[in-house]
Amino acid sequence: MEDVVIRLTEKVQLNDPVFVEGLPGVGNVGKLAADYLREKLQAKLLATIYSKFLPPQVYVNEEGIVRLVAHELYYAKGKGPKQRDLLILGGDYQGISPEGQYELTHRVLELVHGYGVKELYTLAGFAQGHVVETPKVLGAATSMERVELLKKHGVVFSRTDPGGGLIGASGLFLGLGRTFGMEGVCLMGETSGYFVDPRSAEAVLKVVTQVLDLQVDFSDLEAKAKEIDRIAQKIHEAESRSSDTPTGERRDDLGYIG
Amino acid sequence: MEDVVIRLTEKVQLNDPVFVEGLPGVGNVGKLAADYLREKLQAKLLATIYSKFLPPQVYVNEEGIVRLVAHELYYAKGKGPKQRDLLILGGDYQGISPEGQYELTHRVLELVHGYGVKELYTLAGFAQGHVVETPKVLGAATSMERVELLKKHGVVFSRTDPGGGLIGASGLFLGLGRTFGMEGVCLMGETSGYFVDPRSAEAVLKVVTQVLDLQVDFSDLEAKAKEIDRIAQKIHEAESRSSDTPTGERRDDLGYIG
Amino acid sequence: MEDVVIRLTEKVQLNDPVFVEGLPGVGNVGKLAADYLREKLQAKLLATIYSKFLPPQVYVNEEGIVRLVAHELYYAKGKGPKQRDLLILGGDYQGISPEGQYELTHRVLELVHGYGVKELYTLAGFAQGHVVETPKVLGAATSMERVELLKKHGVVFSRTDPGGGLIGASGLFLGLGRTFGMEGVCLMGETSGYFVDPRSAEAVLKVVTQVLDLQVDFSDLEAKAKEIDRIAQKIHEAESRSSDTPTGERRDDLGYIG
Amino acid sequence: MEDVVIRLTEKVQLNDPVFVEGLPGVGNVGKLAADYLREKLQAKLLATIYSKFLPPQVYVNEEGIVRLVAHELYYAKGKGPKQRDLLILGGDYQGISPEGQYELTHRVLELVHGYGVKELYTLAGFAQGHVVETPKVLGAATSMERVELLKKHGVVFSRTDPGGGLIGASGLFLGLGRTFGMEGVCLMGETSGYFVDPRSAEAVLKVVTQVLDLQVDFSDLEAKAKEIDRIAQKIHEAESRSSDTPTGERRDDLGYIG
Repeated sequence: MEDVVIRLTEKVQLNDPVFVEGLPGVGNVGKLAADYLREKLQAKLLATIYSKFLPPQVYVNEEGIVRLVAHELYYAKGKGPKQRDLLILGGDYQGISPEGQYELTHRVLELVHGYGVKELYTLAGFAQGHVVETPKVLGAATSMERVELLKKHGVVFSRTDPGGGLIGASGLFLGLGRTFGMEGVCLMGETSGYFVDPRSAEAVLKVVTQVLDLQVDFSDLEAKAKEIDRIAQKIHEAESRSSDTPTGERRDDLGYIG
Repeated sequence: MEDVVIRLTEKVQLNDPVFVEGLPGVGNVGKLAADYLREKLQAKLLATIYSKFLPPQVYVNEEGIVRLVAHELYYAKGKGPKQRDLLILGGDYQGISPEGQYELTHRVLELVHGYGVKELYTLAGFAQGHVVETPKVLGAATSMERVELLKKHGVVFSRTDPGGGLIGASGLFLGLGRTFGMEGVCLMGETSGYFVDPRSAEAVLKVVTQVLDLQVDFSDLEAKAKEIDRIAQKIHEAESRSSDTPTGERRDDLGYIG
Repeated sequence: MEDVVIRLTEKVQLNDPVFVEGLPGVGNVGKLAADYLREKLQAKLLATIYSKFLPPQVYVNEEGIVRLVAHELYYAKGKGPKQRDLLILGGDYQGISPEGQYELTHRVLELVHGYGVKELYTLAGFAQGHVVETPKVLGAATSMERVELLKKHGVVFSRTDPGGGLIGASGLFLGLGRTFGMEGVCLMGETSGYFVDPRSAEAVLKVVTQVLDLQVDFSDLEAKAKEIDRIAQKIHEAESRSSDTPTGERRDDLGYIG
Repeated sequence: MEDVVIRLTEKVQLNDPVFVEGLPGVGNVGKLAADYLREKLQAKLLATIYSKFLPPQVYVNEEGIVRLVAHELYYAKGKGPKQRDLLILGGDYQGISPEGQYELTHRVLELVHGYGVKELYTLAGFAQGHVVETPKVLGAATSMERVELLKKHGVVFSRTDPGGGLIGASGLFLGLGRTFGMEGVCLMGETSGYFVDPRSAEAVLKVVTQVLDLQVDFSDLEAKAKEIDRIAQKIHEAESRSSDTPTGERRDDLGYIG
């Protein structure tokens, strides 16, 4: 079989489309953001991408129907005739080997290059190792113009973070994208790294919608964030009780979970 | 060498054949079921499939003769002129890497597609983590029609199981089969996951024979199941004795083995 | 680069050559035997085989000269005009992945097939987990004729060993060799599995030389075996002293090393 | 995508160029040496080499600009019309699998072969497991002529080191280089193996510059070495204090760090 199998669902012409990627990763921030954007924009499925670089796995839905793990590319038409269209990539897994990462990313870039994509937004989480009440959005980009643009939207470009660079699809799309002549940015929402983080996804998505001038209602994502807060709070309380020593030492240690 | 080498043993025309897969896996349920079906139907070898995605290994039989590990495809003609034929896949191992799983599955699908297969039955075990006296058969399928059909034969479609989907050949045949336009079902016999389970294989096979209207004598499989029961019982007794504490606590813990 | 690179050293015509394989493995029995045979028959280098399925490594000799790890194929002409020629394969490593094992074995089979090889002898060790004073030679073969022939030369065909089959090159050459229409046998010298075992290699080689009617002086191999004996004896004595408890329990445990 | 992607930056004619390799490895000795040589000779970028055999990673610089991990090939013209030119290979990682090592090395050799390279210098560290005040440079080569030449420049050819041969790019370039008809040497600076070692890199580079008659100012490398010395000294002192027992035993153990 081919390493990567692309099944097109329909035939479309897109207007100077922007590519947005959000695959599973740290805190699932990128995936949460891209999936939410796709739902709110009622984006339509354009291509399903199967690959031997994904796990040999099917998911089974509540009715008992199987679905092979895949990447999925959606498109959303811009509001007016002059607004740019969007291509949004989501999926069940990142490629499960370094070679698979390269191959999958390259094939998707080839595909979206064919639709005229010249600009990439990749969405990810940045693990801080402690709970972040108000997550900042860190950035990395392919050009100084883009760095300056994003700074205006509150994106933080740190001299030290991410120190080891970006590992995985979000970085690779930018790195390989340049070999296609594409420019782009990676937006990383701060997150603890301990659980899925809709609040961080919201922070990332707010930047995306501002920069691309999209109208998105964030209430559902906020509801999700509050639900996670409640769960974390309960864990926090349970752990505080079980370690309620006179010194209170352990309580402090756990402070970062609440 | 080619990644997958298919050696055809004979040339046959098959009548609307149904494909049944049972490779090694949880409790060896799928393999036990498919091998038993093949023996009882006196199915004939149609193809031997070697691959670099299987271990570099030969088996040696009691006489000292070697045999390279492989997948084997058998066929059984239907009883009357109108009964559908069967293609049954067994083998020594599943592919030993994710890529190998995809490649082997794809090549077998290509092969059976050439014989006109449009319907797949994949057989597997579902690990419950505790002994199941009367194993149920869980199902997953490619369409609601098939889900409804199987429910009539007592197959359970759980809203929660299998939660993480199906990993390995049984799921992949369904997932990749759809790219060949094939429909299918996976039948998973409940099993502890701690030993090979002929009783679970029997439960699975009873569904298969009912749905496909096949006549199979289950007495040999039942004999095997009783043999395993005896072995498990002996282990249980030995462990109960060695932990015969006044509280009997450990005895209860082990209850699930008997 | 090509997966497997074969560099021919000279151009030869061979008379119905027999192929003998001995690569590193359990107790290094196969390699010791094949290398010794090659030296004593003054076999000449015919081909060097490099591969990306071998480690990325060079060896450095005592003078400081590097040599890329490889497989090497040697040939030895038969004594009279009617005696069959020999092809002997040695090497630094077996292929370092299952795929690499298949690919390397297949390419060597292709190569020796071109020289007219129809018969394979693969040499290996069989780990018993305890010291064997007088190692037997176990066998496996591709046909009953060969099983019967080898039994006459004292080779043991056990109903139970090797229970899990043969893993690695020695088995794979037989298994894949059949797809080239070749017949063959694997000769496995019993060995502890704890150290390199020239005595086991000698046992294996004595069968090979008897069956193929070759004249080989075993004195150098016997000298090596005695050297290993001396080293093992010293370790044994040192360990016995350090565990010289009144019960002598540990002494017995170590008996298998001497 | 192609396994290895080579992007040429400019078109040059080179005069009998010598190839110098220094990729990350033990003590980062090779990389430190090659990078320093490149900077001091103001070598120019000739080719960027991307590959799926490198990690799926981008680095982010202080300004926030991403760069895909790669190998980079630089060239430096010789001082006079008769002095040979240089090709210097550096990079972020060695290939991350054995196959990747072979493939990357082979492709670079193909590339530099096209520029007329007949001679290779590969630079590496040799881990001694203890601090070496005045690191020696060990050698390995493809011919006795080169061994003799290097001995005159103080390179040590040990009968025992490196016992297990050379694993990785520095050895592989020599091993595969021979299949291109190239000769070469590997220069290994002794190093502890516990931290990056500019002093060892300096020792290696002094041999290179002597043999190739290059003028290089070593003061920056010496400054780096002293900085590492200071850090090591501080660690040493801290550890000595914390283990300042009457017997002074632990102090001695740590002596090798200072």
